[in-house]
Amino acid sequence: MVFDTQNDEPRHKIRLDRVGVRNLKTFVIIERSGGLRHHFIPKVEIVIDLPADLKGVHMSRLVESMTEVISDEFSVYPSVEQLQIRILEALREKHPFKRGEVKFEFELGYTSRTPVSKKRTWEVCDVTAITVIEEDRPIVHSAEVKVIGNTVCPHCLVNNNGVTHMQRAVGILRVTGPVDQIPSYGSMIDVVEQSFSGKTYSLLKLEDEMYVTKSMHENPQFVEDVCRNILQIAKEKFKDRDLEMYAEATSLESIHKHDVVAQGRALTNGDDSTLK
Amino acid sequence: MVFDTQNDEPRHKIRLDRVGVRNLKTFVIIERSGGLRHHFIPKVEIVIDLPADLKGVHMSRLVESMTEVISDEFSVYPSVEQLQIRILEALREKHPFKRGEVKFEFELGYTSRTPVSKKRTWEVCDVTAITVIEEDRPIVHSAEVKVIGNTVCPHCLVNNNGVTHMQRAVGILRVTGPVDQIPSYGSMIDVVEQSFSGKTYSLLKLEDEMYVTKSMHENPQFVEDVCRNILQIAKEKFKDRDLEMYAEATSLESIHKHDVVAQGRALTNGDDSTLK
Amino acid sequence: MVFDTQNDEPRHKIRLDRVGVRNLKTFVIIERSGGLRHHFIPKVEIVIDLPADLKGVHMSRLVESMTEVISDEFSVYPSVEQLQIRILEALREKHPFKRGEVKFEFELGYTSRTPVSKKRTWEVCDVTAITVIEEDRPIVHSAEVKVIGNTVCPHCLVNNNGVTHMQRAVGILRVTGPVDQIPSYGSMIDVVEQSFSGKTYSLLKLEDEMYVTKSMHENPQFVEDVCRNILQIAKEKFKDRDLEMYAEATSLESIHKHDVVAQGRALTNGDDSTLK
Amino acid sequence: MVFDTQNDEPRHKIRLDRVGVRNLKTFVIIERSGGLRHHFIPKVEIVIDLPADLKGVHMSRLVESMTEVISDEFSVYPSVEQLQIRILEALREKHPFKRGEVKFEFELGYTSRTPVSKKRTWEVCDVTAITVIEEDRPIVHSAEVKVIGNTVCPHCLVNNNGVTHMQRAVGILRVTGPVDQIPSYGSMIDVVEQSFSGKTYSLLKLEDEMYVTKSMHENPQFVEDVCRNILQIAKEKFKDRDLEMYAEATSLESIHKHDVVAQGRALTNGDDSTLK
Repeated sequence: MVFDTQNDEPRHKIRLDRVGVRNLKTFVIIERSGGLRHHFIPKVEIVIDLPADLKGVHMSRLVESMTEVISDEFSVYPSVEQLQIRILEALREKHPFKRGEVKFEFELGYTSRTPVSKKRTWEVCDVTAITVIEEDRPIVHSAEVKVIGNTVCPHCLVNNNGVTHMQRAVGILRVTGPVDQIPSYGSMIDVVEQSFSGKTYSLLKLEDEMYVTKSMHENPQFVEDVCRNILQIAKEKFKDRDLEMYAEATSLESIHKHDVVAQGRALTNGDDSTLK
Repeated sequence: MVFDTQNDEPRHKIRLDRVGVRNLKTFVIIERSGGLRHHFIPKVEIVIDLPADLKGVHMSRLVESMTEVISDEFSVYPSVEQLQIRILEALREKHPFKRGEVKFEFELGYTSRTPVSKKRTWEVCDVTAITVIEEDRPIVHSAEVKVIGNTVCPHCLVNNNGVTHMQRAVGILRVTGPVDQIPSYGSMIDVVEQSFSGKTYSLLKLEDEMYVTKSMHENPQFVEDVCRNILQIAKEKFKDRDLEMYAEATSLESIHKHDVVAQGRALTNGDDSTLK
Repeated sequence: MVFDTQNDEPRHKIRLDRVGVRNLKTFVIIERSGGLRHHFIPKVEIVIDLPADLKGVHMSRLVESMTEVISDEFSVYPSVEQLQIRILEALREKHPFKRGEVKFEFELGYTSRTPVSKKRTWEVCDVTAITVIEEDRPIVHSAEVKVIGNTVCPHCLVNNNGVTHMQRAVGILRVTGPVDQIPSYGSMIDVVEQSFSGKTYSLLKLEDEMYVTKSMHENPQFVEDVCRNILQIAKEKFKDRDLEMYAEATSLESIHKHDVVAQGRALTNGDDSTLK
Repeated sequence: MVFDTQNDEPRHKIRLDRVGVRNLKTFVIIERSGGLRHHFIPKVEIVIDLPADLKGVHMSRLVESMTEVISDEFSVYPSVEQLQIRILEALREKHPFKRGEVKFEFELGYTSRTPVSKKRTWEVCDVTAITVIEEDRPIVHSAEVKVIGNTVCPHCLVNNNGVTHMQRAVGILRVTGPVDQIPSYGSMIDVVEQSFSGKTYSLLKLEDEMYVTKSMHENPQFVEDVCRNILQIAKEKFKDRDLEMYAEATSLESIHKHDVVAQGRALTNGDDSTLK
């Protein structure tokens, strides 16, 4: 006989917002129609709400929903969103919840070309993808890319006869909206890369390095500028979609030990001032 | 002649929520009245909002507000809250803002005694303290302690003839409210330590270890239980204060490679269901 | 005209041991003959020595050696070792060195089965692979797997009437030797998993959890035991190979905030006491 | 009756190099004669060797040696070295070992002045201190400082009409030798700071920023240069001491997503080429 401790009354009847598994690593394959096949080892979080009158969540059912959907044969899914929805749908068959959430964090590789020598390079950025299913609401997805670029200080440049400081910077764009409104990771990466003083490359020959450093000096940007650029370029590029956007720019200051940061939000459609 | 680039019009007129410095390390001394003197090297974040029509924040003024308040003589402050308010007040003299925020992350040492041999031990936990000043609103402070304890699985215990699994766990209590309502870090640490299956110690002699492991087995707790315990014990202990509370329990499962987690919120006063 | 600054005389004529690139992320595909195709995004380090009379290393040639070997068509290599040797050979054509080293750090996914319910699970461990080419010496490779398991305290168990503490643990096996002597990652993972009190699984149904926790209690192990088990099992399993081995076991103590650790070395062939 | 499991015969008689506790946090106070009192919360590792015929180390004795030496009254020690020696001496009374090692990792705050406006700033660097006591050998201490500065690329500068890239960099100096030969942390930090293209400051007013960025452009340095500078300046500054030195410079490239690194070793006295 099995005691279903999870279904006992808890000692303190307090509703919990999010209960589940975290830092779970697994293996998934995604192939967008007509695109490359991507293999990821995402770090996974699956959480659901827990009503005040139940002691616990059946944790193994959360994991099982995922492993069954991935299956023995490594089912290939057309998108991270579709895979995450399938996991939550499978979970709903096994375990009741009002609100369920699946998060994947993974690295995404993409190719680029050096600006002058036109050599092929491999670049990697961080992606976070979250799907939330909530009772009586449409499914919401959130996709975030975190890309490395750089900033050149405009303030020092104008005050110091063209001599300034520059540094590595990190740009983030996160979009949240209905699943069918989410743009591709590639187009989101493009937005962030265009927002820096300059893009970064894994490989630069001398002619590329000269071009890149000159271009950067001609395009000085505060983190505040980079953050606004991300939001504005995304507004234009994704104007036919219905998305809430978050942007962040962090600069690993070369003349300081600390970083500087700018964070903002905007809508692709509608009045940004309605954002709380 | 100095060009004040920060006061230029930005290319894209988008309001930014949070702009400032991050990962700044400094040195502060706190001495609660009648208490021990604590020396911290906090990791500091100072951010303010940026209106849509200004290009940038004068970053050096953010840092200067802090260094001036700390001063050459290492001014001793009675609490982290008071120091953070002073930094924001000093900043307001130098730089306009509608919303200003200072965050400190640091390690806090405290003493304990082993349960049987009564030996003195030193324990360390993580603290995050945030003060927010916003136009036309009272100052809000948030204090968080992150403490290491353990969990023993109640489900396995009842189904497996007393044989179960246990593991290291991490408990978090965060309280948010008016500055004068914030409890001491020590009382918050107590709340979290009482919520686990057992407390952890830097030192345990065999008699302590025997006592501790027996007590843990008699007090099996899911992460869901630990999370609710934190909220309930804090509700009772801080019932005369007006605080919003967040609790989190994470268990570094000994039979899995992943963690399990539970997160919830409650109020010291009033109806928890009003929390969105 | 190009100034080859790297070939200038340095101000201080000091030989440097290791100069190169670090934290470089790229994309590789490995397919062992007859095996699964593995896609990795390794974190790469490529370093060479720098003679006392040269100012610098041509960093772009280090990266180029790798990108050319990976190539536009994602060349598939039969092993990480073969790929790393190709990178160092390509580098030697572009840049002189006495000692060259390539390191990859990546996550490796593998499948397992739960012990009772026989469900398929996905597990992930960390791998570090290093190839060193040095003048007048055979090529040396080092492969390390880092696997999560658990420990059950034997000391508390015998002194406390069968009540003890257990916790998540991390086991490392690193083998170093000629490239053709390196065992498969799978066989190294097996060695480490057999050395713990118990294996960990991403998924366990109740019947598995009962079996696993019972087995763990019947197999109590100090970190010292786990470390020696790794060395001894590897000695037996790889006795026909010529390898130097390093093992480490770390236990995330459930009754302490700190970890306990054991580190040792052994040879597959020959007298361990010859190890300095 | 107590079973001393640790003294049992191990199943596999393999000598272990290092067994003990890790990631233990504690609280120490150091006051150099005539100097400031420093309060640290070091992350501590204490390890000893384990002979082939003993099953385990009595872990609690390692911790106890430390807590007793720190004592209830927070004994103030004149140096980290002296405190670490006391811990190992106390441990030798409780537990036999051939080789014992204590490591502290902590943050060290120090003051600086901005170069033009002469404002006082607070800077923080990372320190690692290790003491090793080994049978029939003199006590050896190793002190390492890790300091943030920057690099300006000399290659791009000369080839690109004075336009170049610069970035945050990290410099490490580690000295190893007899305890009485170890220089102060302050003098080691000076060595590293002088080795960069420029120092970094937590605060810079515009006049400082202009001065700093100009100076950096006049002092371009590869990571190879920074690494050699550290070794050469330390050779001169510490020439009356008997130390083995390790230096490392890492540059967080502003035009790449990866870092570049240089590592080397030297002696304060004697022929560097004798270093293996």
